[in-house]
Amino acid sequence: MSSAISPLAPDHFPALPPIGGVTLRTARARYKEWDRADLTFVTLEEGTSVAGVTTQSKCPSPEVEWCRKALVLGRARALVVNAGNSNAFTGNRGREAVEAIAARVAGRLGCEPSDVFVASTGVIGVPLPVDKAEAGLDAAFTADPCGWEDAAATIMTTDTFPKAAVTSAVVDGKTVTLAGIIKGSGMIAPDMATMLGFIFTDAAATPEFLADALRDANGRSFSCITVDSDTSTSDTVLAFATGKAGNAPLEDAESDGADAFRAALADLCLQLAHLVVRDGEGATKFISIAVEGADSDSSAHRVALSIANSPLVKTAIAGEDANWGRVVMAVGKAGEPAERDKLSIRFGATQVAKNGLAVDGYDEAPVAAHLKGSEIEIGVDLGIGEGRATVWTCDLTHGYISINADYRS
Amino acid sequence: MSSAISPLAPDHFPALPPIGGVTLRTARARYKEWDRADLTFVTLEEGTSVAGVTTQSKCPSPEVEWCRKALVLGRARALVVNAGNSNAFTGNRGREAVEAIAARVAGRLGCEPSDVFVASTGVIGVPLPVDKAEAGLDAAFTADPCGWEDAAATIMTTDTFPKAAVTSAVVDGKTVTLAGIIKGSGMIAPDMATMLGFIFTDAAATPEFLADALRDANGRSFSCITVDSDTSTSDTVLAFATGKAGNAPLEDAESDGADAFRAALADLCLQLAHLVVRDGEGATKFISIAVEGADSDSSAHRVALSIANSPLVKTAIAGEDANWGRVVMAVGKAGEPAERDKLSIRFGATQVAKNGLAVDGYDEAPVAAHLKGSEIEIGVDLGIGEGRATVWTCDLTHGYISINADYRS
Repeated sequence: MSSAISPLAPDHFPALPPIGGVTLRTARARYKEWDRADLTFVTLEEGTSVAGVTTQSKCPSPEVEWCRKALVLGRARALVVNAGNSNAFTGNRGREAVEAIAARVAGRLGCEPSDVFVASTGVIGVPLPVDKAEAGLDAAFTADPCGWEDAAATIMTTDTFPKAAVTSAVVDGKTVTLAGIIKGSGMIAPDMATMLGFIFTDAAATPEFLADALRDANGRSFSCITVDSDTSTSDTVLAFATGKAGNAPLEDAESDGADAFRAALADLCLQLAHLVVRDGEGATKFISIAVEGADSDSSAHRVALSIANSPLVKTAIAGEDANWGRVVMAVGKAGEPAERDKLSIRFGATQVAKNGLAVDGYDEAPVAAHLKGSEIEIGVDLGIGEGRATVWTCDLTHGYISINADYRS
Repeated sequence: MSSAISPLAPDHFPALPPIGGVTLRTARARYKEWDRADLTFVTLEEGTSVAGVTTQSKCPSPEVEWCRKALVLGRARALVVNAGNSNAFTGNRGREAVEAIAARVAGRLGCEPSDVFVASTGVIGVPLPVDKAEAGLDAAFTADPCGWEDAAATIMTTDTFPKAAVTSAVVDGKTVTLAGIIKGSGMIAPDMATMLGFIFTDAAATPEFLADALRDANGRSFSCITVDSDTSTSDTVLAFATGKAGNAPLEDAESDGADAFRAALADLCLQLAHLVVRDGEGATKFISIAVEGADSDSSAHRVALSIANSPLVKTAIAGEDANWGRVVMAVGKAGEPAERDKLSIRFGATQVAKNGLAVDGYDEAPVAAHLKGSEIEIGVDLGIGEGRATVWTCDLTHGYISINADYRS
């Protein structure tokens, strides 16, 4: 296993305050042959609202199915995250493992099993061992509470650094805090890509308000990142609102502080999403791709993803090669409305092509200088409409191949 | 530039007979700083029908646009192929270069410019230099005719071996021969992926019949291969029928030998398509992906492509890793109708997962042995319908990264 920290990692783990109503604990369930905490157990005080978004995969894990059902009720008392085994594609035995975990926690806390949210990440196709999960939970029940960094590290699998972010907003005269942890995209074979994100706030909010705000934030953050175009069976983002800040509950767009809370949640999600890209497998460049002038925002999004997922674009950036022809190719293959002779492209601040051909007297020097950095910007103007979107990705390097191919399970 | 021949290359160039009515020549236009033939000039006797399929890219090269217009007329007298410059995304200057080439050949042969087909492959964004093209053509006009291997080598850019195939059919009591050459997928930055294929037959066929047969063959061959999911701006396959075999022209499904000819053309296209995969960048494994039990054939095709384009599946094969969970992932992300608990997967002849989970007593040994070979088969049964499709791809290795990233243009 590669243990080198991504060169795109932040300097340090951010300072996250405690969130009222949230208690973090970890334990060693030993889902793999390792000596590290791999079970995260979060308790949430009564009255906590929950909302979530999950993978669109047609082969979701039983955890994802469990969360989808429980989300309908909108209440949460606990979260259990298992690292080292995704429990996906395991049939009835996988479902039974999730039910056993929820039942054990519910028994301990005196709540409904549907108040317990479960997520797992790791290898596909191996049923989560119930005995290890139960022993891990029993250890977690009596463990001392821990801090955010320990929790963020415990949900990691092949990530190279723990990831968290924090924002705040003033709601109904109270300052509410939103904190989140996330894992993902530091995959090593045979583990599967899984992105799990958990957001906690002391704001009071109805499940409906929280769900709507999360859906909106997700559309502009997690849905706008890609490392390798491979969608996980287990992707899950859950947001918990404990209400301990004491604000009048956020209910709808008219609620005091609704806009501020939504903006803070969107900002938090974007920070967390960027951290996943910064830990993309083998990544050496953080790439922003902004598309404008498209037929619609959704069309711009699909064009941007076509560029972000192109192996030829990603390898060109890895090679610091100003090969803008590959961006033309990726726009052309996207299948979205586009007119070659209206297409313009920039790298960093430098226009390289305009209206269907290279700009007159194109000077590659500033583009080459931009590409030597680790923060890369590609701008595309399709020139046919008002649609716009931005997505974020990383480059494709030998590191990606080493992580995923130079290994036998 | 890497010059090692792909480990998946055939042992030798196939024996292709001359095709009546087709004369091959090559010349040095020196589109790049190299000392090799890079202009292929094919003359076709009067009465030759032509059909073609071209890229779906929204940013096609002017050559593609020229061919599309000329194909409407269905007649051909010459083909010019330039290697080293794709002439794509070059605005009016690119269009003028194509027109100049067609005009010069038409003047020489005494035909219409629309009887002259032009294709180019290489770097994007640099107008094809007209002076070099014209000097190359003048040299080609007086060059001695050459054989298939020289022609197949001259259309190469970063391919590692020349590619050709031959088939035959009995039509109207005459044996007709179909020969094809193709280039593609041995890309080295900064060149673009381009697949160019040229098929020649001495059969007599109307342009309409030829177009219909080619469309059908294309759907089961070139449209079923992928190296890296990146669609070129210049992909073109042209089929020329000179009529020199003397058969009564193939006109429709009732024509004598129509089925035999269509089958031979489909076989030829599949052989050529497989050769492109065998020269895929960095390829060490040739991978067949067969999907059955899908909602429809087109749905099966999309699921198969989702697997074939998954970097995680391709790197697992490169690593000879029996990581079938990644196939589950790729099925799940395809967005096509699928039910996790009806999904079955095999590697080679070994069933690894059935009805949503690993088979009882799964033994990895035969799968590991299969993966050590260079011809890999993945079978997926979605279990929900009658749709089926097969696609072909190669693995994703350090070679791909080296070719596309370890290079500055």
